[in-house]
Amino acid sequence: MKKAYIVSTGTELLLGTTMDTNSVYISERLFENGIRVVGKSVVGDNEESIRKAFRLGMESADVVISSGGLGPTLDDLTKTIACEVMDCTMQMIEEEVERLKDYFARRKRKMPEINLKQAMFPLEASILRNPLGSAPGMYLNKNGKIIILLPGPPREMKPMLINEALPLLVRDFGADCRKAYMRTIKVLGPGESQVDEMLTEVIEDPRGCSLALLAKDGEVHVKVTAEGTDEASSQVILNELSGKIVAKLGESVFGYDEDTLVSIVANLLVEREQKLALAESCTGGLVSKMISDLPGSSRYFWGSAISYSNEAKGLFMGVQQSTLEQFGAVSPETAREMAIGIRNRAGVDYGIGITGIAGPDGGNEAKPVGLVYIALADAEDCIVKEMRFVGGRDGIRMLSARTALDILRRRILTKG
Amino acid sequence: MKKAYIVSTGTELLLGTTMDTNSVYISERLFENGIRVVGKSVVGDNEESIRKAFRLGMESADVVISSGGLGPTLDDLTKTIACEVMDCTMQMIEEEVERLKDYFARRKRKMPEINLKQAMFPLEASILRNPLGSAPGMYLNKNGKIIILLPGPPREMKPMLINEALPLLVRDFGADCRKAYMRTIKVLGPGESQVDEMLTEVIEDPRGCSLALLAKDGEVHVKVTAEGTDEASSQVILNELSGKIVAKLGESVFGYDEDTLVSIVANLLVEREQKLALAESCTGGLVSKMISDLPGSSRYFWGSAISYSNEAKGLFMGVQQSTLEQFGAVSPETAREMAIGIRNRAGVDYGIGITGIAGPDGGNEAKPVGLVYIALADAEDCIVKEMRFVGGRDGIRMLSARTALDILRRRILTKG
Repeated sequence: MKKAYIVSTGTELLLGTTMDTNSVYISERLFENGIRVVGKSVVGDNEESIRKAFRLGMESADVVISSGGLGPTLDDLTKTIACEVMDCTMQMIEEEVERLKDYFARRKRKMPEINLKQAMFPLEASILRNPLGSAPGMYLNKNGKIIILLPGPPREMKPMLINEALPLLVRDFGADCRKAYMRTIKVLGPGESQVDEMLTEVIEDPRGCSLALLAKDGEVHVKVTAEGTDEASSQVILNELSGKIVAKLGESVFGYDEDTLVSIVANLLVEREQKLALAESCTGGLVSKMISDLPGSSRYFWGSAISYSNEAKGLFMGVQQSTLEQFGAVSPETAREMAIGIRNRAGVDYGIGITGIAGPDGGNEAKPVGLVYIALADAEDCIVKEMRFVGGRDGIRMLSARTALDILRRRILTKG
Repeated sequence: MKKAYIVSTGTELLLGTTMDTNSVYISERLFENGIRVVGKSVVGDNEESIRKAFRLGMESADVVISSGGLGPTLDDLTKTIACEVMDCTMQMIEEEVERLKDYFARRKRKMPEINLKQAMFPLEASILRNPLGSAPGMYLNKNGKIIILLPGPPREMKPMLINEALPLLVRDFGADCRKAYMRTIKVLGPGESQVDEMLTEVIEDPRGCSLALLAKDGEVHVKVTAEGTDEASSQVILNELSGKIVAKLGESVFGYDEDTLVSIVANLLVEREQKLALAESCTGGLVSKMISDLPGSSRYFWGSAISYSNEAKGLFMGVQQSTLEQFGAVSPETAREMAIGIRNRAGVDYGIGITGIAGPDGGNEAKPVGLVYIALADAEDCIVKEMRFVGGRDGIRMLSARTALDILRRRILTKG
């Protein structure tokens, strides 16, 4: 596998207020193209630091990719230093001067003299187009080392990397650039170590596939990677391996790749032309927010009632005062009345009720923080589940929300 | 100012799936203590890469701080390499062996042989306690250079940095370590460039204070920094400068430092023993979620109705069918009826109604995406504001939510 080193420049990246998200994006794209990142440097706009980072990168890797420092000001040093370490001289490229003048003319401005710097390149370099900014990038392959310079703003950097730099890199690395084909299988229910155990046999696939588990917000993502130069055969391997994994994990698998739990539930409801209404207590609007994050959600989402008071539970959800008194606001009985009540009021297919103790206060021995009741009512039945979540307030609310959506997902699938 | 270099180790940091948040945290804490970060390296668990990163750090800075690589396995290399570059030999420290045995005994496990590695240190080093894990850290000051090794997991790294490493660093750097005192003034209403303009005169303060503006989720944060060895006089300067800034920005300033818009609104309501109910349409539960993110929100939050259908607007908010037909769901009239309707039903002090077009679809020339009406009803009046937000669906929803809370904040302040 070919190796890459990433240099991010910009004093703001060292102050602790701005995250270096560029290098994370670049790492992902390189990995997908079979290039391994062996190190990263973050440096300020300082000549000596940038030079050292480039030299370290060239010692450690086949390609050094930098972002930032291509602007017109004195601070913008990367191109000069890159040419120095690659032993190249720059000259004014007439075509680039014209492009720059055009760029400013389209914005009804005269090009400042200082921007001429952005039209200087070594003759050996390929110039990378930047349709979204004034700074072109640079691709330089000389003496067995490659340097790629990208602009700092992510919205300029990303398309230049994808459309301009990666194709050149893949061309130059040729067969050494074994593309990695990936699929992410998304799981809700079992924890990371349970999934790990369930997949023990599958993990030992002999054909150079690798599996990685990533736990996030109560979900477990199984990332399957197949390396190969040939897409078709890699896809066959991916399909086969995914099939085995899904067979092991069953209906805990809710989706793949870009799917989210919400998008999956939304699709299931839209396909069936069904609608949902919610009665949220401890989640305080989180589930409604997640559902309405998706555009077009009015097709399957009727609305919600959110109660932070007994009166709201009575008024909007039809929970009986006697139920609240006898069993308490956090009880299976209240959850059931919430789900049935909101479903009846809304006149929709599904009603969900969620009530629990998100903490940090409000718990006791009988009803501890993390105790949550989730009820799902439809025309046939009302399921009530008791959950005991561990974690802080945010964690308990997030797990409650996801579990509620997952109960709905499984119910819809069961009914077919 | 003394200089620092940060080395983060861990192969997972190079794959693009895990963010290096440790170095951001360390940068902030160093900056507050008058130490400037001049560079960062991220390296995999590879001997040669770690060695190069340490050497580069020692060339560039007075102190090198690393996180990760202190575990017991073969992958965990940082301590060995740090000792090599600092020219120290390690030996087994009996006291540390006892601590390790204790650590495992408390967890009802026998200490694995492999963990003995974590009890090896050079005699010149200060050992940094790790109450939350098995790996102690190391502080080594030799020949004018300092190396600090911290564990990788953030929950272990942070307390060790604060409680163990920083005090030693401040002691050793002495007067060179000019502490920076900071205050963040949080603003909602004017944009970043407007705030910049309003503060032109203030920014030119002669006493070595610096101002930085940071725009985030529709808020502008003005970060004021005063450098000095003496806390009292720095606080005087900070207070004076903050006073000037607040005088310029007026009631657009909603809070300081750890304050959030929600926490400020919550405090205002709690102080006055008042309650709030919401009728959300385009924000789909986001405002309710933000309010109930805070523990104890039932003291001032009654509940909400969320409508993604005209029926929900009628049933829960008392919006007249005729209003919807005549003016549409996105109109000042509907917003007003939502706010008044929810306030009356809930019988609380404030009712907020939010209706708009979050996009990406559903807009037209007369009512474009980004058009949002926010109404606030109280006993005396009902204010309705028309907003035209720019941005994607998430951005428009977030701006709508913040603006609604800000309208309530300003209204409460006006009433005194």
